[in-house]
Amino acid sequence: MSSASAKAQQRAKFEQVFTVIRDELIAHHAGSGMPKEATEWFKQNLDYNVPGGKLNRGLSVVDTVEILKGRTLTDDEYFKSAVLGWCVELLQAFFLVSDDIMDSSVTRRGQPCWFRKEKVGLIAINDSFLLESAIYHLLKKHFRQEKYYVDLLELFHDTSYQTEYGQLLDLITAPEDAVDLDKFSLERHRLIVVYKTAFYSFYLPVALAMRVCNIPSIDGPSDPYAFASSILIPLGTYFQIQDDFLDFSAPPEILGKIGTDIIDNKCSWCINVALAHASPTQRAVLDANYGQKNAESEAKVKEVFEQVGIREKYATYEEGVYKEIISLIETIPSQGSKEGLKREVFKSFLDKIYKRQK
Amino acid sequence: MSSASAKAQQRAKFEQVFTVIRDELIAHHAGSGMPKEATEWFKQNLDYNVPGGKLNRGLSVVDTVEILKGRTLTDDEYFKSAVLGWCVELLQAFFLVSDDIMDSSVTRRGQPCWFRKEKVGLIAINDSFLLESAIYHLLKKHFRQEKYYVDLLELFHDTSYQTEYGQLLDLITAPEDAVDLDKFSLERHRLIVVYKTAFYSFYLPVALAMRVCNIPSIDGPSDPYAFASSILIPLGTYFQIQDDFLDFSAPPEILGKIGTDIIDNKCSWCINVALAHASPTQRAVLDANYGQKNAESEAKVKEVFEQVGIREKYATYEEGVYKEIISLIETIPSQGSKEGLKREVFKSFLDKIYKRQK
Repeated sequence: MSSASAKAQQRAKFEQVFTVIRDELIAHHAGSGMPKEATEWFKQNLDYNVPGGKLNRGLSVVDTVEILKGRTLTDDEYFKSAVLGWCVELLQAFFLVSDDIMDSSVTRRGQPCWFRKEKVGLIAINDSFLLESAIYHLLKKHFRQEKYYVDLLELFHDTSYQTEYGQLLDLITAPEDAVDLDKFSLERHRLIVVYKTAFYSFYLPVALAMRVCNIPSIDGPSDPYAFASSILIPLGTYFQIQDDFLDFSAPPEILGKIGTDIIDNKCSWCINVALAHASPTQRAVLDANYGQKNAESEAKVKEVFEQVGIREKYATYEEGVYKEIISLIETIPSQGSKEGLKREVFKSFLDKIYKRQK
Repeated sequence: MSSASAKAQQRAKFEQVFTVIRDELIAHHAGSGMPKEATEWFKQNLDYNVPGGKLNRGLSVVDTVEILKGRTLTDDEYFKSAVLGWCVELLQAFFLVSDDIMDSSVTRRGQPCWFRKEKVGLIAINDSFLLESAIYHLLKKHFRQEKYYVDLLELFHDTSYQTEYGQLLDLITAPEDAVDLDKFSLERHRLIVVYKTAFYSFYLPVALAMRVCNIPSIDGPSDPYAFASSILIPLGTYFQIQDDFLDFSAPPEILGKIGTDIIDNKCSWCINVALAHASPTQRAVLDANYGQKNAESEAKVKEVFEQVGIREKYATYEEGVYKEIISLIETIPSQGSKEGLKREVFKSFLDKIYKRQK
């Protein structure tokens, strides 16, 4: 079987679990005495917003459990890992539905944003809450008997809070309608990325998988969760910086979308690198054109990016961070494990990211 | 000491606990490396949206713990009860900040709605998330060592989910801009009220107090939580029906605000009673005028309310529900307790509500 079709099969198996939990959520809603039209609305909310993405975060829970156990999962182990994977996807859906409202976005995953749908509008705010609450309903239903249940709850609570810290910082640093590049800096960018993206996209899936594998927390410097975080947060930061660079540099036909970070006044890695190296003249061009809603301004900003040598700076960054992460991973014995963790957990993430083109 | 000044003192003591937890939340935010302007924003969010209401829900946690223990609380017991009270107020703030956006409200508690403040706008959505997440941060900080910790978490999860079920039902039943009285009914009204209001405003504070007092759940018909719910849900429903009736009937100078339920197309008890008793002619008046944004339409609706005898119907309802709740309360022995519960827990709520004028 080719790797592409193995991946498609893996995805299809994971998606089957979605239909199970979706039906559980719907059955609970209907069973609460809610009228048909409300249950139908809730079903649309789930179907429209939860599947349909790349599912990287959700699938990485299952992948990590398999690596940690070092064998094929039993049906029950697979199901439980996949439920946690879908809980991460629900958390993502909660954030994306609400972020799209806050950012006045138009499309998401190749379809109109949920709040843009006729009749939905700001009801989408409450719909996003329901996506979040569904996580805790599923955890209660499927994990209440496990001794790590409370650890799962706290992981979702803590990660949500961190992501909301990051979202607040992003919103006040880069409001769409008020450009002020003085607020930007590479340090501010790093802080936004760590909080808004890295915790929930990289640390959360691995930490959930570790809990399912009964890896305990340890007080002190040998805590495996702190160790996992020390690799996954830089890895998540690298992923987002790459995302920012691809938004600028990747051909739209390969990326699958047209980058809009410059037009949208995003606090992206690219603008922060440019600001750090711009001459006064270049800075004036950035101030006058960043976040402006026209193609000429965008082109002028892109010109400054090229002038400061952003492509080379990105290549240098990528090589450096790759080596740094590899050296962190190699503190784990090559064949054995460190506090229950294996190299392959982190290597599999890194391999998917390193030098990706889209 | 007069009852009024005792109440003011009680409120002041409770408010002092807010400053403690507010400072804890702020310290955690700043300690995460967040820049000053972000921490200042978070502080404004907490100060603007959490205190400033009537605090009935929060205070009722403390009151209930005192009744259940039958004595003055120690400083530690008071503090913990008050933290839970503020967690209920945080949950309420989460819902109110977001409801105001969904309802396009203008003022809340005598000041502009948070999202109406300059520079806030839709950032208020993420601000509401932070208010919710603060609950779980506080529970972890202050209750992690308690054996009932997971019960507290589940109470907040379950209640949030129920409230969001209720909010969805309300939003699709009574959208502000599309009046369709065919969607209304007294049964629909009851379902909205139970889910959107009664669980979080009445059951949650008492159930939290019961957990702090170490009252265990019991499988089967003698579960004290199910028993408490069987009184508090009708009581919460009565409270909301009264609220709906006062919106129509109370003089604004006594109510402290001008009722807008008719103009806002609210699925209120009054319109549902009127619909249940309207002649075809009266129904036509309601269809033509309910939810219309002008005083003449409002006056015509009010006339129909009077014609169907809404005041008498309310008085009859209130006497009936009062007797029903009293008879439920009296299944608890007058001097003793039933599964750890005492009459006074429920009686104190009922006394505050019965025949209130504002």
